[in-house]
Amino acid sequence: MSDITKVALDAMGGDNAPVEVIKGAVDAVNLNKNIVVYLTGTKEAVDNELSKYSYPSDRIIPVYSTEIIETAEPPVMAIRKKKDSSIVRGLNLVKDGTTDAFVSAGSSGAVLVGGQLLIGRIKGVERPPLAPLIPTSKGVSLLVDCGANVDARPNHLVQFAQMGSVYMEYVLGIKNPKVGILNIGAEEDKGNALVKETFPLLKNTPGINFTGSVEARDVINGDTDVIVCEAFAGNVCLKMMEGVAKTLLKDVKGAMLSSLTGKIGAALVAPSLKKALKRYDASEYGGAPLLGLKGLVVKTHGNSKSREIMNSILQCVSFKEGRIADRIREQLEK
Amino acid sequence: MSDITKVALDAMGGDNAPVEVIKGAVDAVNLNKNIVVYLTGTKEAVDNELSKYSYPSDRIIPVYSTEIIETAEPPVMAIRKKKDSSIVRGLNLVKDGTTDAFVSAGSSGAVLVGGQLLIGRIKGVERPPLAPLIPTSKGVSLLVDCGANVDARPNHLVQFAQMGSVYMEYVLGIKNPKVGILNIGAEEDKGNALVKETFPLLKNTPGINFTGSVEARDVINGDTDVIVCEAFAGNVCLKMMEGVAKTLLKDVKGAMLSSLTGKIGAALVAPSLKKALKRYDASEYGGAPLLGLKGLVVKTHGNSKSREIMNSILQCVSFKEGRIADRIREQLEK
Repeated sequence: MSDITKVALDAMGGDNAPVEVIKGAVDAVNLNKNIVVYLTGTKEAVDNELSKYSYPSDRIIPVYSTEIIETAEPPVMAIRKKKDSSIVRGLNLVKDGTTDAFVSAGSSGAVLVGGQLLIGRIKGVERPPLAPLIPTSKGVSLLVDCGANVDARPNHLVQFAQMGSVYMEYVLGIKNPKVGILNIGAEEDKGNALVKETFPLLKNTPGINFTGSVEARDVINGDTDVIVCEAFAGNVCLKMMEGVAKTLLKDVKGAMLSSLTGKIGAALVAPSLKKALKRYDASEYGGAPLLGLKGLVVKTHGNSKSREIMNSILQCVSFKEGRIADRIREQLEK
Repeated sequence: MSDITKVALDAMGGDNAPVEVIKGAVDAVNLNKNIVVYLTGTKEAVDNELSKYSYPSDRIIPVYSTEIIETAEPPVMAIRKKKDSSIVRGLNLVKDGTTDAFVSAGSSGAVLVGGQLLIGRIKGVERPPLAPLIPTSKGVSLLVDCGANVDARPNHLVQFAQMGSVYMEYVLGIKNPKVGILNIGAEEDKGNALVKETFPLLKNTPGINFTGSVEARDVINGDTDVIVCEAFAGNVCLKMMEGVAKTLLKDVKGAMLSSLTGKIGAALVAPSLKKALKRYDASEYGGAPLLGLKGLVVKTHGNSKSREIMNSILQCVSFKEGRIADRIREQLEK
């Protein structure tokens, strides 16, 4: 295995593209000399932005494309028609083995559909889920699925548990990761029809460490490493966490700065507060991998700034080292 | 209509019963002279706790019961068998017109099932939802359903929207309240099968002000007054908010107190911080009414302290004044 991790990056995707995306690429290659980034995007955008920085020019390789897939476009159609878009070009770089991974902050739908159509699923995988790491009091947990497969069936959730366990063990290094199912009560008889059907299946799945139900209020405690759920509930869980954290911290800051004594106090508490709350900053954890594909596809937030893009690129290194696709294949064949 | 609001209160329900529950009752009658509380519970518990306080003795009326329904008991069986439990006795006080409302921090299942079996649904209501007020940046929003009806159907969600609108207009005084549907994207074509089927129905429901999808990350912004959702997603939404807020605020406090300068700073910011964050304290908003019953049933958190119990009792006054059951009946007949 080569020591170099090659990452295709969608220079045109996301609210802050191309500026923040390309800055993230430059920061990544300047930080880690074993990374090469293939930047897919229009010649104008890529050349303009790259000209602002100094970086090792052999480690950012422009791949010019002429089309852009917009967020609102129907994904299947967009992937089929816009063959020279930054997303299709980037996915094809993974498909043909040029790069190890593709990272995009662009249209979620196009990235999810394109990943399946162009790169393809690992044999046996039915529905590749989107699996972000979420911050907790103890570290991080993996939330699978948080947006790819609404109305999933019980056997899909079982595969999410298997793939999520592989991820936490081989990318994060957590031995025998604890797996829980998102539920509305702690007891086994609680839940909707999907959860009630899935619960006994998870109990009987070999090779995973199933520990039962996790209520949403306990997700942030970090007692469970892999939390499986249907994508609608997972998306609500993830976005609720982001929304509440953002608003509360804004209110904390606003309240402190609302008076002179508060301002003095804020200056005194700022260093320790900043350190403690950094863990809840989603941009520290990079993007969400789409688990179960033959190659690595990472979706980052549409509003990603350069720091999140950089972290998403760096994340590809441990994903490659963990040989996740191979291990998922092995796990599902058991 | 009498000026007196009579509230049956389950003295045995919740983690902190009977101590905190009975303290809440005493605080409520001492605060508002137009409230009478009927305390259902064992003679020993009720008499012991009441003897600790001074209060107008004609406004807390003990109703002795001998049985207790535990949280883990199957609800239907418990309601049918334990006729002399604090929950069944309390619900029957509403049924026979002795009291205007019943408040309990006990078994959610028993309260929900008992409310339907003993008090009954308003004609036309298919599934009574649990509808708590949740704190937002701008005030409060109503989240319907957050736990009563998992796997609800589209027409149930339409009724949630109608009943929630009545609640916000006549209890909270918000004219023409905005109604949104919890979703995983802002566009109309986003969502799971339930949301996609419900969306056009809500658009065409007369008498409500439907404004479209609400993503979980925007719930806390408070732009939507009534947020309708299936109970599983609603429960995840509610409990995620509670869990994240609790953990973040604990971390903020912990970080501040971790150093001497931090401690000095904390003392300076404490007053304004406390004021700003009070809005996110669930206990300020009382319990969640079960909408669509012929009488008022309010479920409060299992871990309620006296303040939340008191607020749940006080809340019954505006509910009674708003004549919610009558207005829901009128709305559904339109």
